[in-house]
Amino acid sequence: MRHDHLITSKQLSRDDVEAVLDRAAEIDADPAAVADRHAGRLLGLLFFEPSTRTKMSFETAMKRLGGDVVDMGSVESSSVKKGETLADTVRVIEGYADALVLRHPRQGAATMASEFVDVPLLNAGDGAGHHPTQTLLDLYTIRQNAGLEDLTIGIMGDLKYGRTVHSLAYALANFDAHQHFISPESLQLPREVVFDLHQQGGGGQIREHDSLSEVLPSLDVLYVTRIQRERFPDESEYQKVAGEYRIDTETLETASDDLTVMHPLPRVDEIAPEIDDTDYAAYFEQAHNGVPVRMAILDLLLEGGENDE
Amino acid sequence: MRHDHLITSKQLSRDDVEAVLDRAAEIDADPAAVADRHAGRLLGLLFFEPSTRTKMSFETAMKRLGGDVVDMGSVESSSVKKGETLADTVRVIEGYADALVLRHPRQGAATMASEFVDVPLLNAGDGAGHHPTQTLLDLYTIRQNAGLEDLTIGIMGDLKYGRTVHSLAYALANFDAHQHFISPESLQLPREVVFDLHQQGGGGQIREHDSLSEVLPSLDVLYVTRIQRERFPDESEYQKVAGEYRIDTETLETASDDLTVMHPLPRVDEIAPEIDDTDYAAYFEQAHNGVPVRMAILDLLLEGGENDE
Amino acid sequence: MRHDHLITSKQLSRDDVEAVLDRAAEIDADPAAVADRHAGRLLGLLFFEPSTRTKMSFETAMKRLGGDVVDMGSVESSSVKKGETLADTVRVIEGYADALVLRHPRQGAATMASEFVDVPLLNAGDGAGHHPTQTLLDLYTIRQNAGLEDLTIGIMGDLKYGRTVHSLAYALANFDAHQHFISPESLQLPREVVFDLHQQGGGGQIREHDSLSEVLPSLDVLYVTRIQRERFPDESEYQKVAGEYRIDTETLETASDDLTVMHPLPRVDEIAPEIDDTDYAAYFEQAHNGVPVRMAILDLLLEGGENDE
Repeated sequence: MRHDHLITSKQLSRDDVEAVLDRAAEIDADPAAVADRHAGRLLGLLFFEPSTRTKMSFETAMKRLGGDVVDMGSVESSSVKKGETLADTVRVIEGYADALVLRHPRQGAATMASEFVDVPLLNAGDGAGHHPTQTLLDLYTIRQNAGLEDLTIGIMGDLKYGRTVHSLAYALANFDAHQHFISPESLQLPREVVFDLHQQGGGGQIREHDSLSEVLPSLDVLYVTRIQRERFPDESEYQKVAGEYRIDTETLETASDDLTVMHPLPRVDEIAPEIDDTDYAAYFEQAHNGVPVRMAILDLLLEGGENDE
Repeated sequence: MRHDHLITSKQLSRDDVEAVLDRAAEIDADPAAVADRHAGRLLGLLFFEPSTRTKMSFETAMKRLGGDVVDMGSVESSSVKKGETLADTVRVIEGYADALVLRHPRQGAATMASEFVDVPLLNAGDGAGHHPTQTLLDLYTIRQNAGLEDLTIGIMGDLKYGRTVHSLAYALANFDAHQHFISPESLQLPREVVFDLHQQGGGGQIREHDSLSEVLPSLDVLYVTRIQRERFPDESEYQKVAGEYRIDTETLETASDDLTVMHPLPRVDEIAPEIDDTDYAAYFEQAHNGVPVRMAILDLLLEGGENDE
Repeated sequence: MRHDHLITSKQLSRDDVEAVLDRAAEIDADPAAVADRHAGRLLGLLFFEPSTRTKMSFETAMKRLGGDVVDMGSVESSSVKKGETLADTVRVIEGYADALVLRHPRQGAATMASEFVDVPLLNAGDGAGHHPTQTLLDLYTIRQNAGLEDLTIGIMGDLKYGRTVHSLAYALANFDAHQHFISPESLQLPREVVFDLHQQGGGGQIREHDSLSEVLPSLDVLYVTRIQRERFPDESEYQKVAGEYRIDTETLETASDDLTVMHPLPRVDEIAPEIDDTDYAAYFEQAHNGVPVRMAILDLLLEGGENDE
């Protein structure tokens, strides 16, 4: 990875992705080796939208590298309320930090902001746009549990609005994965995403389903996402759909013993707690993988900085 | 102290308590000796209720040990708002940290949460339940000022709702202290606490009073708590009671010269500012003792962790 | 600088100011030399009013010196809401930290608070009162760009309410600067400030104008401040004034090529973005200078502390 900024996972080639995952695996195997690697470096956190785990995970990653963070805090307590532009805010805060992490509700915000700063900027979510570090930790978790070669994955739930899902699907197409998309009709993948995936698709296949059962036995990985109640005009329709896309031990009876179940969390009740202690469950591991993967990303982006001169 | 978690002071034997206080005294005497002791370790802060000083005090303690913190931030900005269970939240965040501190409005939350995590969990208050680190810093302050042997203590104010007071009372019963409880009738100790104390009581005595004057001359320590206005249906009744349980130089005329006055803070006007500069006042020292005592607790819980292997 | 606290820039002699600026320049030239200088030290942040950049800048400064911070957080989540006095709050928090930074909406709060604590206290703004570290970073930026000797400066915008402007004007009077104040009549410098400046003024001159054009060609520095919409009873009057005091390339046609344009930020539209990439613009540099200047201040105040014994 030799980019100044990390804005979208689309900018990453298969080699780029593998470089990040390899570095993450090295760090995971021996975290003590990097415990002081970026001592004295500061990561600026600019979260214009609430986020617990992405923010904590970046903060943990930076601190596990020996560095520290400076946090803009909530928008309510910031100069943004006085009418400051995003371009001005990032130009001020880049003076405090060696790299910036930006989450913003507006699609394209990270791209725009990155044009105004000289330090590396990482996109931690720009509205309906991209969230590349989530994709990289998902890929890392898949590689650890099922491998990325000849992968058959089911992606289930709200496929219409989830930026997590779209990013992951594009990245997996790079690895020629067989992708099965399972959702109620009203929450299917947007047609343009399906089109892009077909265009891009190497040897992989893209299939859409409205039920898990027909495809479950063939899956190496089942990636479950939250179906948001507020997407449905009618509560009864939500209840019906939510029930059908809920995973429990009964649902998984026809699954392979090696199936890996993932979820970006938080879940509400898409996955029954009884799954948590089975070998299927990889969603807490997935959340924890945010740390080594973000350590790897920060390490690669900060490399060549002042400490290495 | 050899526990994985610290949930309640009831779990601590007299020896356990003394081990913590001894360690705190060592740290207090030579803080530089531990300044790098837990370098690279991270403490996860999960405060589901606001708290300034408990949180700052834990943060200070961890940083004075060379470690650092990662903070979940307020509930408003967290995944909890999306309906995530406490069990899921702690399982995600344990992936970021070497130990967790939890404050939660629901009694029993810390016990429940501790069953889901492998890292040490410290209860920093669970509703009307327990707050063991407050009790330990209170005991440390008492030991420094009056000693824990053959102690006569008055505990005054709101004894009905204060978890601080109940925890302290149970812990002092272990030390056979003579405990006098002074409160308006409507804010007396709950009957079950009195019962437990009588059951538990070794050589110590438990007495209840509605006035300070009769017992003040015999006290080594007077522990004052805040009487909350909102407990009273009637403002005039509050005014009467609040006035009677207010400490000033006139109130203390019959006190021993060696009396130590404590208060968990914040105070409103239970203790007149004129007391602040007298030898009686130990409440700021008590607040400051939160740091060495929490350093001792963290040090004992983190011992045997990865850095020591 | 040999003061226990930093409350107002008025307490600083010309020598004091130069000591801070010299130290900041040294640090700026070689930040690595101080990267561990205050390791283990903690700075307590008490912001009773929102502030992004002052707070981030102090936090960055302390961390660039190898230290760390403990932050009280917002007033909403603090004991202040329970009715605690400022005197009690600072006395508790001084037990956690080696120095305190206080921002408070009440004028005089920093002076009052400083009388209750033994650790150095830095005023980061007390209502309409003082904000000395802003003044020092302004002076540093002026010295770097135009020099402080024989300076001709224009200070423009809202001169009535801006504490930043008043502090800067007093400090510049110490350096015998020629100061031109440019504002609409309704936002002129308060008469008592003009009076004080005349009293204090060595060889420098104080002039007031209602238009920039007559004085612009003679300026070394133009310091622009934000005109707040809410100061005007009538929107149309605001629009007229705001337009007249807006800087763009056309406005600057008669300016010296060496003119330095400053602004304390955030700006709304007092300075057109087209100025940002010209040699005139020093406002982002000015914001960034908050770090070395606050590092210098912290370094001088923490000197002689426990680590140096």
